[in-house]
Amino acid sequence: MSLAELKRRLGEEKVVDDVDILKIYARDPATFDYELPLAVVYAESAEDVVAAVNYAVENKLFITQVFHSTSLSGNAATVDRRTIVLSSERMNKIFEVSDVDWLAVVQPGIKIDELNLELMGYGLQWPVDPASSKTASVGGAIVNGGGGMRGAKYGPASHWVLALEVVIGTGERIRLGCRTLKCREGYDLLHLFVGSEGTLGVVTEATIRLAPLPEAFVGVVAQYGDPASLARAVVEARRRRMWLMVAEFMDDLGSEFVGLERRYTLWMGIDVVEGSEGAVLARLREVAEAAGGRVTAEAGDWRTFFKLLEPRRALYPAPVKRAVEAYGGNAVIWMGDVAVPLSRLPEALLAMRRAAEKFGVPTIFGGHVGDGNIHPVLWFDRTDEAGKKRAVELYRYFGSIALELGGTVSAEHGIGLHKRDMLKMSVEKRGSPPVLRLMEGIKKVFDPYGVFNPGKIFPPSQ
Amino acid sequence: MSLAELKRRLGEEKVVDDVDILKIYARDPATFDYELPLAVVYAESAEDVVAAVNYAVENKLFITQVFHSTSLSGNAATVDRRTIVLSSERMNKIFEVSDVDWLAVVQPGIKIDELNLELMGYGLQWPVDPASSKTASVGGAIVNGGGGMRGAKYGPASHWVLALEVVIGTGERIRLGCRTLKCREGYDLLHLFVGSEGTLGVVTEATIRLAPLPEAFVGVVAQYGDPASLARAVVEARRRRMWLMVAEFMDDLGSEFVGLERRYTLWMGIDVVEGSEGAVLARLREVAEAAGGRVTAEAGDWRTFFKLLEPRRALYPAPVKRAVEAYGGNAVIWMGDVAVPLSRLPEALLAMRRAAEKFGVPTIFGGHVGDGNIHPVLWFDRTDEAGKKRAVELYRYFGSIALELGGTVSAEHGIGLHKRDMLKMSVEKRGSPPVLRLMEGIKKVFDPYGVFNPGKIFPPSQ
Repeated sequence: MSLAELKRRLGEEKVVDDVDILKIYARDPATFDYELPLAVVYAESAEDVVAAVNYAVENKLFITQVFHSTSLSGNAATVDRRTIVLSSERMNKIFEVSDVDWLAVVQPGIKIDELNLELMGYGLQWPVDPASSKTASVGGAIVNGGGGMRGAKYGPASHWVLALEVVIGTGERIRLGCRTLKCREGYDLLHLFVGSEGTLGVVTEATIRLAPLPEAFVGVVAQYGDPASLARAVVEARRRRMWLMVAEFMDDLGSEFVGLERRYTLWMGIDVVEGSEGAVLARLREVAEAAGGRVTAEAGDWRTFFKLLEPRRALYPAPVKRAVEAYGGNAVIWMGDVAVPLSRLPEALLAMRRAAEKFGVPTIFGGHVGDGNIHPVLWFDRTDEAGKKRAVELYRYFGSIALELGGTVSAEHGIGLHKRDMLKMSVEKRGSPPVLRLMEGIKKVFDPYGVFNPGKIFPPSQ
Repeated sequence: MSLAELKRRLGEEKVVDDVDILKIYARDPATFDYELPLAVVYAESAEDVVAAVNYAVENKLFITQVFHSTSLSGNAATVDRRTIVLSSERMNKIFEVSDVDWLAVVQPGIKIDELNLELMGYGLQWPVDPASSKTASVGGAIVNGGGGMRGAKYGPASHWVLALEVVIGTGERIRLGCRTLKCREGYDLLHLFVGSEGTLGVVTEATIRLAPLPEAFVGVVAQYGDPASLARAVVEARRRRMWLMVAEFMDDLGSEFVGLERRYTLWMGIDVVEGSEGAVLARLREVAEAAGGRVTAEAGDWRTFFKLLEPRRALYPAPVKRAVEAYGGNAVIWMGDVAVPLSRLPEALLAMRRAAEKFGVPTIFGGHVGDGNIHPVLWFDRTDEAGKKRAVELYRYFGSIALELGGTVSAEHGIGLHKRDMLKMSVEKRGSPPVLRLMEGIKKVFDPYGVFNPGKIFPPSQ
């Protein structure tokens, strides 16, 4: 198809169809089956987005908005050749920061770390903190309903979005939500967009809620012989009403991969009032040790603690190196993303490790123990058909373990391509198959011509 | 219409059509135009709800789920004679509390204070705290998207619901959400229900997120000569990164009504680490006084502070007495519910007071300054046509002031009957009229036969 008309409407420099560029935009890190898109559009404004959506509708094409493609469930991958990938990279401005209203107005392509660096000057933070925050964008975290390292206290992205400007499938540009945290104007369409994975529309602007940076902060790193002891420390902190901001973990193998001792590692951090650092740190240490842990490091402030947390952010990158050594360019690394209630975490972790051994797929574990979120990272050779099949089955089996223990098949990465049948499995397990029909109905309301991010979320059979 | 068949399906004792009972269930405190329903059904289980919904569909009737009808926008009022009011009063059990997972599973009719009394034994709270928490229920707060007195820190009800069991318009019973805080299984249907005001289905069970009770707490009450000084205290607290849990206010007239001195009253409370009470209280006092306030009371613990807060809860009940003295049984008391960004609060308050004087309608003001939420309480004589007209216009005008200042016409009370044209005004002001069409589309997805809570949310012309 000729893109001349699209280039005429948007400007030459915003439309690229060079094959080498298309390859970069066709996939996210975990996708190995994908198509090349028709073009990449570098939108610079909501007007550009409207033009691209109208063009797609007129020509029966698809639109997939991508940010920095750090998603891990195939959310941003191209599955149909007739797709225009809409890059948000050039929409990366901060329009406003208010240290009175504790909000910011930004374009969706701004990177989370870049934003937080700017906010630090105001004593504020956007507390959505995925491990990939150096690269991941605010818009991507919103659209995929991300969570991250501070979620134990602050909750997921959906708690930190006040309003969105979006372009829906009719080409209409609308605003959802308010500049105020309380906003009860009919149905909550705003939060319907959070986690919609680009299937309902394109986000062109976000008004986000901010939290104060803690005035003081303390934390510990402790190591354990088994996951039950590790979880016991967090349970004990909860029983003592300590509302941890950070409670992260890695299993023994994972810890070794990132350069720590081969034991179960726990990071616990908590915001405190200035002057109470010593007392709270002593209490954290007590809790960590009472559960059988050995405290290997302590932090008396925020910066030191987040430095100690760096190895935890390597949960995904570290095995990539190992997998490439083993399988070269055929290596595929998948990160699972299940959650269980904290009370079931040790049980879940043991069952998942047993499964990985049984299936014979190399896997390490880590995640956000504070909200029961476990990320198994597994790798395989895509040319080894039998090995690939085992990996796919294991990934899926992790989901059924989580469901069996009252949890979810998708905590913060979304459904994308990889978990579509797990979504079906989940609604069936909950006795709620009509949920898929309701979701399809909603998709049609926002996207009547079926333009946005085809092939995602909905099980293929639907 | 004969209710014999409904009684046969549900049991005689669950279906009541005595006129005196119907009158009680036909309205909420602020509604003066209403119809009598056909019957009240006291559902005891999800099965009862399914039976009632199926009966309504078969007989072209309506279903309005009510809780304890403390809503203030006509959300629960009956507007069509063919309505079955579904009372949730008998669905008031607590099924489970977990002090490890920080969640509870409850039936929706449980009263908030009753629940919190039970949770206190676990050191936990459900922090959604409307002024009417003695009577208001968990389900009502969820369905109406309530907020309340701890919202400055904890945010609205939508942050404190993990999962719901609901019966939709097809009579299907489904589960939305997870037992975990992170839950990214396709579209966020759970939060679509929060604030849907009973128009999408009936809630039969809720899994709610809990927070720890603060281990220590301090607070002050301070009085000011003008709203700008009062707001400056809260702004200054924010600039010092003090994340207040409670920041409530009442204007001078309101303060006098509830027995305080005739000045602007501010309540500020904050959770602290044990041992730091003195230091933080001193800081609070400093902030309150630097803005020109006179500290009239202090609290060194949670219980004392919440006792000091009692007069603030009388913002609605106090004028009721006054209005009844003035207008007898014809008195109508309305509570408005707008929000503006904190930075615009003094401006909004002054404009609203000027308007009330100009319209000549007695009005007092109070609200949640921490999230910019202002509640004007106005009263009038329903038999005085001119006075009633002025009151209705003023109520609506408050909404346009809020919109002009970047705020919302509905912060936590919802749209109900009273704010349907204000909803229209709001989406037009934001340049987003398609929003109403999208909401109608969603209504049809969940309620294809139009059974639930007729006449609410959607502007009459829609």
